[in-house]
Amino acid sequence: MPSPTPSPMPPIAAESLIQHLSWRYAVKAFDPTRKIPAEQWKTLEQAMVLAPSSYGLQPWRFFVIDNPAIREKLRAAAWNQSQITDASHLVVFARKTSMTAADVDAFVDRTIEVRGGTKESNAGYRDMMVGSITNPAGLPGGSLDAYTSRQVYIALGFLLASAALLEIDACPMEGFVPKQFDEILGLAAQGYTATVVATLGYRSPSDWLAPLPKVRARHEDVVRHV
Amino acid sequence: MPSPTPSPMPPIAAESLIQHLSWRYAVKAFDPTRKIPAEQWKTLEQAMVLAPSSYGLQPWRFFVIDNPAIREKLRAAAWNQSQITDASHLVVFARKTSMTAADVDAFVDRTIEVRGGTKESNAGYRDMMVGSITNPAGLPGGSLDAYTSRQVYIALGFLLASAALLEIDACPMEGFVPKQFDEILGLAAQGYTATVVATLGYRSPSDWLAPLPKVRARHEDVVRHV
Repeated sequence: MPSPTPSPMPPIAAESLIQHLSWRYAVKAFDPTRKIPAEQWKTLEQAMVLAPSSYGLQPWRFFVIDNPAIREKLRAAAWNQSQITDASHLVVFARKTSMTAADVDAFVDRTIEVRGGTKESNAGYRDMMVGSITNPAGLPGGSLDAYTSRQVYIALGFLLASAALLEIDACPMEGFVPKQFDEILGLAAQGYTATVVATLGYRSPSDWLAPLPKVRARHEDVVRHV
Repeated sequence: MPSPTPSPMPPIAAESLIQHLSWRYAVKAFDPTRKIPAEQWKTLEQAMVLAPSSYGLQPWRFFVIDNPAIREKLRAAAWNQSQITDASHLVVFARKTSMTAADVDAFVDRTIEVRGGTKESNAGYRDMMVGSITNPAGLPGGSLDAYTSRQVYIALGFLLASAALLEIDACPMEGFVPKQFDEILGLAAQGYTATVVATLGYRSPSDWLAPLPKVRARHEDVVRHV
């Protein structure tokens, strides 16, 4: 049997993976004095960019909010949750509000740029994708919004898992008012809308939640073999 | 400044993380002769179970389809895509079709089991969660379906990232008929509905997609600093 494509480096240890995923939790209080080093942050940005999506279309944009004044405004639109301002980094995951043949064509152009090929050699796949996204009722979830939102949560999962492996803390957050986020960040004009948020940094030593054991359903209740 | 909670083991190297996430791709042809070792598979199940979710409610169940005859039936309900039968493992991610106070109470019971405490000490959080899930219009996405679907995709992201780190191949799949999957697996009677699928195993040496470079939007187009 021929060998599969060789891997670039050894796999990580299963024990390390599980320990890191167990170590993470949704941080309630960040240490506002600790910042993620620039190199580490760049790695987390790369992990988000590498997240997979339906057809590879990446119907998203990741807004990293550095400006403290804007973070204060966003906090007010997120039930005043402290993580929005106290975390080292704040990412607003936004999804595209519309998708047309132009989005597919831009993706095909990028594909040709990276892989070679021609518009003609990609025409079949291009037409299939256009047919799919212009028939929202046929998309997973039954609407463009449902479809793009789901993709965005894959990227969220990639970011949270990646942060845990680098031992960077995080808190995913859904408790915010998307319309207010869109206004504060001017997202509508760019064709995006806020979908979910992640804050990242380092847990405060006094976070009450940090020492508590993680609560998960029993393995046999949630994983079923058929 | 006090130290944060000590980490269990060294973080993985940033370079290893990015190389593994770059190595993965959506496998088109699996090697049907290669099976994921049982220990490795157990690790991937654990990674799914550890995925975070809104309030920690885990509105999901992960069906691992071992039965070859059922996999054949599912393949017919998934546009005859070969990964459904040829991959070593097949996971159907299902979401709950309803959520009531009883789901929250079960979660609170589990929390008390793991962390201690009493129903009384959890009453405030319990009532907040019940208020939230029984007002679907106020949930992220504006409906219970949108809300639970999004959570399921976090678990998908965790599984895909974890598999890549262990150098196990995977293909996420949305091209299937959920109603037919529900019927074949008897999900409705259990209160679940099929949401997304992942196939896992080892790429075939002859998979045409394996040698092609990954296509992603330019970093600066998809990550924006504000």
